[in-house]
Amino acid sequence: MPVKKSKRIVLIGAGNVAGHLGPALVAAGHKVVQVYSRTAKNASKIAKRLGAKPITSLRQLAPADIYIMALKDDAVKNLARKLRVRGIVVHTSGPLNIDILEKTARNYGVFYPLQTFTIGRKLDLKKVPFCIEASDSATKKVLMDLAGSLSAHVLSVSSAKRSKLHLAAVFACNFSNHMYTLAGDILEKENLPFGILEPLIRETAQKALETGPRKAQTGPAARGDNGTMKEHLAMLKGDKRAKRVYTAVSKSILKNKL
Amino acid sequence: MPVKKSKRIVLIGAGNVAGHLGPALVAAGHKVVQVYSRTAKNASKIAKRLGAKPITSLRQLAPADIYIMALKDDAVKNLARKLRVRGIVVHTSGPLNIDILEKTARNYGVFYPLQTFTIGRKLDLKKVPFCIEASDSATKKVLMDLAGSLSAHVLSVSSAKRSKLHLAAVFACNFSNHMYTLAGDILEKENLPFGILEPLIRETAQKALETGPRKAQTGPAARGDNGTMKEHLAMLKGDKRAKRVYTAVSKSILKNKL
Repeated sequence: MPVKKSKRIVLIGAGNVAGHLGPALVAAGHKVVQVYSRTAKNASKIAKRLGAKPITSLRQLAPADIYIMALKDDAVKNLARKLRVRGIVVHTSGPLNIDILEKTARNYGVFYPLQTFTIGRKLDLKKVPFCIEASDSATKKVLMDLAGSLSAHVLSVSSAKRSKLHLAAVFACNFSNHMYTLAGDILEKENLPFGILEPLIRETAQKALETGPRKAQTGPAARGDNGTMKEHLAMLKGDKRAKRVYTAVSKSILKNKL
Repeated sequence: MPVKKSKRIVLIGAGNVAGHLGPALVAAGHKVVQVYSRTAKNASKIAKRLGAKPITSLRQLAPADIYIMALKDDAVKNLARKLRVRGIVVHTSGPLNIDILEKTARNYGVFYPLQTFTIGRKLDLKKVPFCIEASDSATKKVLMDLAGSLSAHVLSVSSAKRSKLHLAAVFACNFSNHMYTLAGDILEKENLPFGILEPLIRETAQKALETGPRKAQTGPAARGDNGTMKEHLAMLKGDKRAKRVYTAVSKSILKNKL
């Protein structure tokens, strides 16, 4: 689906986020002119699929409308200090403030997709909320349009608010995934496959999204069932970290009841 | 879909589990003859939909093939001591041992559906794993057949193994749901809707189910990004329980890296 205003874009980074944004940008009718990575192999891998030029030195940067820094936070911070570009520069980080780009270009912003990205997985970016912030209103317009060409959910979000949103995402994604991991560890010891939890995991997510998670809460802690909680802690003996998680989370659920 | 061996069943309990099992049993061709609850209103509510008789005293129990005690654990324990029936008696609890029913009937067992049940939600029991245990092989056959008339996933699981499975379910369901709650709390303070996390929550569950949760783990703790973790703890100041959860879960994720 080509967009009204096709942009010339340089991807700085060749990791999970760049690997998903690149093809989506091309599919939306934009031109990805270069893909930068310190590693030639990584740059080439993504550039090839996009009809872009792989580069390994920032001195090779071509003129473009938008430079997207899809890098780890530390790398963004480092590069922002050294890099100077014409055109708009954005980073894609949840926690990083917009200000770190103020020396990098006259027009700058944030282009944060609220999703967990893993190379090789198919993702429908159309449903992913994009959080946009910009140095000025003209830049904001460009970034909102760009995000709008990829997704149906584009929001204007300040740095302060975005860092909270990222914290919420850590709980909802990273931490819930770790709960799956601890569940999987228990099953593994019993020679039970993780997949046995599939209907439960799906229904838990579905119910929370439909009724809100507070209303959806069930289980021993929600019932104040101390007997079962004690037995669970006894079963976890020998696994200090799982025990500590069990105690902290159960206490937090119990407090919700009060 | 009527089954070969239609059973006469009494539901003892009128809560979330009974509310889901009842209609599924009827749809599978069984006859639910009675629904017991201490509260007449609750008994009637479910009995009516099943063409069963509501009862509020266990002295009214009719002859049946199978008595299903779909009650809270404490209620099962209590009732198991007092109740004596002909026919098979089962409970539907994850943590409770099969032995607590040894005085209640000559033939007894466990009929544990691995799912989170909430009244009013539509659920496809066909995909729900049913964990079966029985006092003897003839009873086991009856219970496996009964479960097989409801679901495509029927397993024979001992009490010891089932209690571990239940513990795993607490992590995968109850605890991941609480992670959603804590995320929702953060969003609420920022006037952001919980639904903004929908694509993230769905993809997190999907990815864990496809690749396994250990491989799917991302986020500050997985990266060992101490700077972001420090900032997150600073943002959570004033919310001790969320902070404690953040610390315990992050430490547990960090340990997985080692």
